[in-house]
Amino acid sequence: MSPALNLRPILFVLGWLLTVLGAAMLIPVIVDLADGNRDWTSFLASAVITGFVGVSLVLTTRGMPLVLRRQQAFLLTTLAWVTSAFFSALPFMLSDYRLDLADALFETVSGLTTTGSTVMTGLDEAPPGLLLWRSLLQWMGGIGIIGMSMVIFPFLRIGGMQLFKTESSDTSSEKILPSVGRLGIAIGLVYLGLTVLCLLAYWAAGMSGFDAVNHAMTTLSTGGYSTHDSSFGYFEEVSIHWIAVIFMAAGALPFALYIGAIMGKPTLLLRDRQVRAFLLFLVLVCLSIALWLTATQDIPFDEALTLASFNVTSVVTTTGFASDDYSLWGGYVVVFMFLLMTVGGCTGSTTGGIKMFRLDIAVKLFGSYVRSLILPHSVNVPFYRGTPITDDLARAVLLYIFMFAASCVALSVALTLFGLDALTASTAAIQAIGNVGPGLGPVVGPAGNFATIPDGAKWLLSFGMLLGRLEFFTVLVLFSRRFWVA
Amino acid sequence: MSPALNLRPILFVLGWLLTVLGAAMLIPVIVDLADGNRDWTSFLASAVITGFVGVSLVLTTRGMPLVLRRQQAFLLTTLAWVTSAFFSALPFMLSDYRLDLADALFETVSGLTTTGSTVMTGLDEAPPGLLLWRSLLQWMGGIGIIGMSMVIFPFLRIGGMQLFKTESSDTSSEKILPSVGRLGIAIGLVYLGLTVLCLLAYWAAGMSGFDAVNHAMTTLSTGGYSTHDSSFGYFEEVSIHWIAVIFMAAGALPFALYIGAIMGKPTLLLRDRQVRAFLLFLVLVCLSIALWLTATQDIPFDEALTLASFNVTSVVTTTGFASDDYSLWGGYVVVFMFLLMTVGGCTGSTTGGIKMFRLDIAVKLFGSYVRSLILPHSVNVPFYRGTPITDDLARAVLLYIFMFAASCVALSVALTLFGLDALTASTAAIQAIGNVGPGLGPVVGPAGNFATIPDGAKWLLSFGMLLGRLEFFTVLVLFSRRFWVA
Repeated sequence: MSPALNLRPILFVLGWLLTVLGAAMLIPVIVDLADGNRDWTSFLASAVITGFVGVSLVLTTRGMPLVLRRQQAFLLTTLAWVTSAFFSALPFMLSDYRLDLADALFETVSGLTTTGSTVMTGLDEAPPGLLLWRSLLQWMGGIGIIGMSMVIFPFLRIGGMQLFKTESSDTSSEKILPSVGRLGIAIGLVYLGLTVLCLLAYWAAGMSGFDAVNHAMTTLSTGGYSTHDSSFGYFEEVSIHWIAVIFMAAGALPFALYIGAIMGKPTLLLRDRQVRAFLLFLVLVCLSIALWLTATQDIPFDEALTLASFNVTSVVTTTGFASDDYSLWGGYVVVFMFLLMTVGGCTGSTTGGIKMFRLDIAVKLFGSYVRSLILPHSVNVPFYRGTPITDDLARAVLLYIFMFAASCVALSVALTLFGLDALTASTAAIQAIGNVGPGLGPVVGPAGNFATIPDGAKWLLSFGMLLGRLEFFTVLVLFSRRFWVA
Repeated sequence: MSPALNLRPILFVLGWLLTVLGAAMLIPVIVDLADGNRDWTSFLASAVITGFVGVSLVLTTRGMPLVLRRQQAFLLTTLAWVTSAFFSALPFMLSDYRLDLADALFETVSGLTTTGSTVMTGLDEAPPGLLLWRSLLQWMGGIGIIGMSMVIFPFLRIGGMQLFKTESSDTSSEKILPSVGRLGIAIGLVYLGLTVLCLLAYWAAGMSGFDAVNHAMTTLSTGGYSTHDSSFGYFEEVSIHWIAVIFMAAGALPFALYIGAIMGKPTLLLRDRQVRAFLLFLVLVCLSIALWLTATQDIPFDEALTLASFNVTSVVTTTGFASDDYSLWGGYVVVFMFLLMTVGGCTGSTTGGIKMFRLDIAVKLFGSYVRSLILPHSVNVPFYRGTPITDDLARAVLLYIFMFAASCVALSVALTLFGLDALTASTAAIQAIGNVGPGLGPVVGPAGNFATIPDGAKWLLSFGMLLGRLEFFTVLVLFSRRFWVA
């Protein structure tokens, strides 16, 4: 075994991950016990299994310096998500719901990747522990995503992420030290702080305490799991919808910039090119769809604005809450939603999709290309945030967008082989790869549920969610022969 | 006026173009006279107007050396198509059909760009001159497209077309001499020869002489206009469908390679990477859809193979004939057709779409990028047909694909504003930009007709067809301020 693929440090990290996961499973145990719900046994069993495997792994692989080479970092990242998903699926399989493996894994992958598609119905009567577990999956997945996009992707140079190097990822060597430094702790505190703020706001606006906790966790992580089958359609208070809009948008901003804001530089956040592009885009789209609703569906403008802002923000931030079935809002909205599912928020956040900075760079490359067509011999290097867009960066960004489109097409075609109709298959594929949550149409739309689609399609969608969340190339390099021999 | 934008040589070429167009309008005059149809007057009037404007332009602008700079080449290319379209629309407006400007221009742009979408019904009873004019538009458009993609695009370096430089476009200077040399004449003869072969084959297989002439012209140009409302559904002979398959595919190959084949190097054509990729792709898709039809629609395999081969080849080569409403063949086919509308054939042919060589290069770039992620410091330049894929080329190809997708999305959204439903709007947009012909669904699908959509949507689609045919950047540079001041 070449040192590049020594599995010991990988197993060590996976061991710690499972240990933490096992510990987290004790929270639903407590909640179910307090509620007097006998479902606590399924969580305790899962916690014991997960914790046992985790601790065993840690004990048998410790004692090596924790330094990772590139190949190890790729493998660890993909394995971490897959392993977490399998163990997190245990409670769903052991509970009274008795989900089969395809369903349980779908639900867990959807949770951890903060996608938010669900196969579960009867949420309003589900045990509190299970509901909390779904929210916890999204909340933990969210912090994992932020960390991955701040440390691992820039190190691995995935899809142009080298633009966002920080101290801990900017090593000139080919190794990475996954040290949880001060930055990591600060980010965690900001994430927790914003979640608590969101919780208090929901509670003050009229949510029950339990609903507020759950929805705060799935709002900040732009996840989209709800404790009610009708999602936010359950809540009639307009203020609750607007609180969600604000905190979904907050979850879509780069978390590193919050630190700057807290450290006394609040303008850093609002002067950031990516943040401004995102917020401007969001406001324009919400207004445009609100106007369309007023013009074509006879809805008063203020009501239309709430409806549009909530559902559009939910899709653009790839959260996936719904307050209405926007599949029925007419051709303009349906086509627009296709587009919005692909956009995503800012990098360094919990959102999925292509992300603002890549679209921004693509537009700049487009402008520079048009200029070079007119005057082929003039020097003409485009810049992004003061950094020249090198050929490497340009290629990484454009290939990422190409890969996003190609994956959506391939997954759509594959899904139709399981008998899904065109609208269901294509929107299910795009929403999975963009980690959005609902698609469009009666089956996978905001008013539907993924329970009825065939198991094979659920496996494909689970793979799609992971592929999108790991920004494609983290997974795809593993299919290259060179990865295993280099 | 800067010499870069001196209009005299541009007007001179446009003048010749209109003179030829005016002369071509005399053919329908003769056909209608021979048929005793009084519609000949509308063609004679159009011919006089077009010829008069053409000859006047030539006479007033002649006497300058015919050398074009980059800006002039861009402007001339776009103006040539727009001007031809406006004058070619005259017969539709003056005939008994009395098409309004939006309809007439839509029909003409669809013809000249070899798209093949139509707003006309009652084709089976239409005057023969008008039917022939539609076919002629596609046939003339076809040869224009081949010339443009062999001479002008490589010179302008549009979307990576610098890869296909020939003697007449490979000038180290910044000027182009649009000389119709031996190559031009040879290509014209091949195009004519293949058309005559196709005509004879159709005729021998049972088409009437008039149908054979028309369909041969619209098959070789991968245009797709028919003389019957039911398109190829009108012909029951299986052999006619297979002849169409062969000649549509023939029209999708690079015409320059036919010359090599005739000059005694037939293997040149079949050893070409782009040709092989295209034919392999075509065969695999036809088989896959034939199997799907057999498996899900209870159609015997031989019948399914004919149905699939005809309709798939028609869409992939962006011809647009139909022998059945494949909108109804199930989710797999519908989603696949979305994809197929974007692919297109080989460059240097009459097909639209992204084209094989660009997809091939994108896949190669993808592979090289994955390798560079694994081993960032290894030298790793991808090659295409023995040529290294430079950063310039890579960027041009990827931006072309990005532009294709972005244009489809933008046009889809714009079309929904005219009340089109999502399937109609999105497939109408993609087929227009890919110059395919029909979209999907009851309105714009293979069994539908564009007549009923609003005028505004027709204008948008006409623009979309031109944009796709001129490979985006030829048109888009004109919207850059720098174009006019450089």
